[in-house]
Amino acid sequence: MISVVILGSGNVATHLFKAFNQAEDIVINQWYSRRITAIASYKNDVEIIDDLSLIKDADVYILAVSDDAISELSSQLPFENKLVLHTSGSVSVYDIDKKHKRGVFYPLQTFSKEAEIDFSTVPICIETIDKKSYPIIKNLALTIGSPTKRVNSDQRKVLHLAAVFVNNFTNQLYRIGHEITESQGAEFDLLKPLILETAKKVQDLSPFKAQTGPAKRHDKKTIRKHLKLLEDQHHEDIYQLLTTSIQHTHGRKKL
Amino acid sequence: MISVVILGSGNVATHLFKAFNQAEDIVINQWYSRRITAIASYKNDVEIIDDLSLIKDADVYILAVSDDAISELSSQLPFENKLVLHTSGSVSVYDIDKKHKRGVFYPLQTFSKEAEIDFSTVPICIETIDKKSYPIIKNLALTIGSPTKRVNSDQRKVLHLAAVFVNNFTNQLYRIGHEITESQGAEFDLLKPLILETAKKVQDLSPFKAQTGPAKRHDKKTIRKHLKLLEDQHHEDIYQLLTTSIQHTHGRKKL
Ligand SMILES: NC(=O)c1ccc[n+]([C@@H]2O[C@H](COP(=O)([O-])OP(=O)(O)OC[C@H]3O[C@@H](n4cnc5c(N)ncnc54)[C@H](OP(=O)(O)O)[C@@H]3O)[C@@H](O)[C@H]2O)c1
Ligand SMILES: NC(=O)c1ccc[n+]([C@@H]2O[C@H](COP(=O)([O-])OP(=O)(O)OC[C@H]3O[C@@H](n4cnc5c(N)ncnc54)[C@H](OP(=O)(O)O)[C@@H]3O)[C@@H](O)[C@H]2O)c1
Repeated sequence: MISVVILGSGNVATHLFKAFNQAEDIVINQWYSRRITAIASYKNDVEIIDDLSLIKDADVYILAVSDDAISELSSQLPFENKLVLHTSGSVSVYDIDKKHKRGVFYPLQTFSKEAEIDFSTVPICIETIDKKSYPIIKNLALTIGSPTKRVNSDQRKVLHLAAVFVNNFTNQLYRIGHEITESQGAEFDLLKPLILETAKKVQDLSPFKAQTGPAKRHDKKTIRKHLKLLEDQHHEDIYQLLTTSIQHTHGRKKL
Repeated sequence: MISVVILGSGNVATHLFKAFNQAEDIVINQWYSRRITAIASYKNDVEIIDDLSLIKDADVYILAVSDDAISELSSQLPFENKLVLHTSGSVSVYDIDKKHKRGVFYPLQTFSKEAEIDFSTVPICIETIDKKSYPIIKNLALTIGSPTKRVNSDQRKVLHLAAVFVNNFTNQLYRIGHEITESQGAEFDLLKPLILETAKKVQDLSPFKAQTGPAKRHDKKTIRKHLKLLEDQHHEDIYQLLTTSIQHTHGRKKL
């Protein structure tokens, strides 16, 4: 049995609470939020607090708060030598106050409150300073059914950076697809199966092998037509740059 | 019962052959390829030809050939006044020789020979010049279980353009994620569940609502760290441009 205290009440904290709450071998001793109203609806399931001086003993403290708040909140914790983890992809493990045993529990997924999440699709990237903490953190992840991967700081930062490309930037391309279609009387909905298939394809095939389309074919005629069709300079810049990037990857260097 | 002749032996032609071949209400009279060896392995399932003078009568002729070949191949067909369709997102329906009844059967999906395709996830965008052809084409699509959408030329071209963004460009972002991770000792595989979840999210949520991350949060510190971490100028340019694009969409205009 692992006992935890969750701190924070945002996307990650809320999904972690739900997963831990359902897991067999985890007990949530408390849930802290600086705004108690944010978690008041869970008060029958767990002890909720907004006062750090009331914080109880536990095996693990998880700071699922904004990146900028991790350092300060960790130093405000009224104890030392306990295992304190943050959940960020980009914050240094050393940002946690050095009075604690420090580690990272970085869930490599996109969380939002609207969408349910299946933790078996959430790889947990684990970083620790002392080796003894590792099996505890690994167990914590396994208990909610998540795959785990031990990483060092550099690897975690690179994974977070790559996640920005495949998640935030990809989503912005979906957004542009939405803008282009809807502004010109076509339906974004028609693109949804393609979006899904594009993501599915690279589950087995490398993105290199999965590539198709006018840029890869160096099909200048279609590329010219597309650039003419784009009404927004911004979209045109993105079209040019990503076309060049594909051609860079697949043979030629210039548009 | 609808009778068809398929022309071409690439990705689209091959997947269409398989789907038509399994469908109840379609008979494939012939399959034409200029390189008969490319389809020789199907010779027990269908009559294969490489000589246009041998082409038989059918309700529909489908030119699933390279964009550039559509016009010429259509004029080489030794008959007239029959329904001839191409499968391209960007080629004009008027590129088909005017001696035919002309239409477009544009499957809005990504096809490659390696990956099986479920035609219920392939919206068929239908364009016709004469109205009478429409129900025949629609039936053809329904018989293989595909949803259909009647579009005009402008809509089809815009859908094709948007498909380049959500498919080819997105795939290139996956590729960059692959390059970044593997070049710095991290595992691309860890990103695969995130890639899938990002695509799933916009099946129900708009890309606008689904957006998260440092660009949307205007988190300058993380953005600076990321730019420093990127080793390739090309990746840096893409990071800058898509970050600006997200900030453009979500409030501010400059990085
Ligand atoms: N969302 C994701 O997809 C995702 C994925 C992987 C990792 N992460 C990481 O997980 C952590 C939390 O992210 P999130 O998406 O859950 O953020 P979020 O939804 O914005 O929630 C942030 C939480 O931090 C609290 N907070 C902010 N400043 C605080 C302070 N000074 N003292 C105490 N609490 C404070 C907020 O409280 P208020 O509500 O009172 O402001 C809120 O509960 C971050 O490190 C993030 O990088 C996020
Ligand atoms: N792939 C996709 O994801 C996708 C999706 C939607 C629509 N489309 C459209 O579907 C059509 C076919 O695309 P594809 O991906 O199947 O292409 P592909 O795999 O490159 O195959 C092209 C086919 O066209 C044949 N061809 C080329 N020039 C010819 C000519 N002059 N005369 C006769 N045959 C000729 C090729 O024959 P050889 O093998 O002898 O060269 C080959 O069989 C294109 O209009 C494309 O825009 C493709």
